[in-house]
Amino acid sequence: MERAVVLLSGGLDSATTLALARREAASCHALTIDYGQRHRAELEAARRVAQSLGATEHRVARFDLSWIGGSALTDPAITVPTRPGEGIPVTYVPARNTVFLALALSWAEVLDARAIYIGVNAVDYSGYPDCRPAFIEAFNRVAEVATRAGVEGRGTAVRAPLIDLSKAEIIRVGSELGVDFGLTLSCYDPDEAGRACGVCEACRLRGQGFAAAGLADPTRYRGVTR
Amino acid sequence: MERAVVLLSGGLDSATTLALARREAASCHALTIDYGQRHRAELEAARRVAQSLGATEHRVARFDLSWIGGSALTDPAITVPTRPGEGIPVTYVPARNTVFLALALSWAEVLDARAIYIGVNAVDYSGYPDCRPAFIEAFNRVAEVATRAGVEGRGTAVRAPLIDLSKAEIIRVGSELGVDFGLTLSCYDPDEAGRACGVCEACRLRGQGFAAAGLADPTRYRGVTR
Repeated sequence: MERAVVLLSGGLDSATTLALARREAASCHALTIDYGQRHRAELEAARRVAQSLGATEHRVARFDLSWIGGSALTDPAITVPTRPGEGIPVTYVPARNTVFLALALSWAEVLDARAIYIGVNAVDYSGYPDCRPAFIEAFNRVAEVATRAGVEGRGTAVRAPLIDLSKAEIIRVGSELGVDFGLTLSCYDPDEAGRACGVCEACRLRGQGFAAAGLADPTRYRGVTR
Repeated sequence: MERAVVLLSGGLDSATTLALARREAASCHALTIDYGQRHRAELEAARRVAQSLGATEHRVARFDLSWIGGSALTDPAITVPTRPGEGIPVTYVPARNTVFLALALSWAEVLDARAIYIGVNAVDYSGYPDCRPAFIEAFNRVAEVATRAGVEGRGTAVRAPLIDLSKAEIIRVGSELGVDFGLTLSCYDPDEAGRACGVCEACRLRGQGFAAAGLADPTRYRGVTR
């Protein structure tokens, strides 16, 4: 049994990932990045999820990416789309998962954690390049050579246990592990009370996932007709 | 001619790297990370160097790594050593160059910059794992698959033009390109006026480099007997 760093956004994928990591690791150190995201309500969701699932500790670290911009999630001038488009959507945040895994790798080395869990998924997903197996494989090679721990043979492996699961499968796995999805927030454009818009890409994938899983969707929507 | 992001610490290696990038790129966007380092005077050195060498813009971004700790450069409780030791020194900051390159990659994508320059060196260096060719190669693979630009064939390559040079060679190259090394700061433990200690690993490598290059060392030392 080893220590693990778990990247926790507050959405349903990372909540399920934390629940899986809790079964496999001796202790789970949850890391949430406050990167200047539009949907800041997810930070509160992450706090609720970390507590609910028994993370050993939960760190919300501020690493502002909003000055870089280039995404609807970090630039208020870019609108969150309400219909699926072509290619990689404007909600893609440039190199975000590379930044997140780099920070997790740094913390993992100090904690002597041998695993980093990340809830990326390449089935029912938005087509973000840094959610694909090729990205995880490439980052794992970085983790082998970048750190003292790697050089000394105590390296840290990135685990993406959801990568081949459909959204419905993720929801079923999470349910079986006791994840309270009512605590999670997936929406890119929630209101100040943390209620979901119901029409963005993240809400759409989430809603379809609950329907396909045959489970009730506990999401609090803000009353928009869907 | 392309745009480039140049990681600029304020030391002599990154100053020389910026001078090299200025010859090769249409515009150089210098990035300095305020990560909570002990030697904060290097941030001012970076500003002087960026201006002196004609960077198109210079961004000092705050990404605090001091809560992670694990290094003499970010944890005040760990002393900067004054004598060389065995193995990777305590001045190694866990996964620091992975974090720095991840941020540079994010900014490069928004700038549509095709190159990231980093002044790492694996000859006269402190043995940090993330200064070696294997690390740069591994990160380049991440850069190919992590971003929209990479997927669309407009990827960003990491360039480490100093990696095979001795410190004396770096100093000679920089001198030929007009770098004013008096503006740079290498010391890990400078005083508040930005004067170097003269006895840390970084000062030692720098002093030996000027001696081997046969050039006068313009460093302002704080009067400690060396």
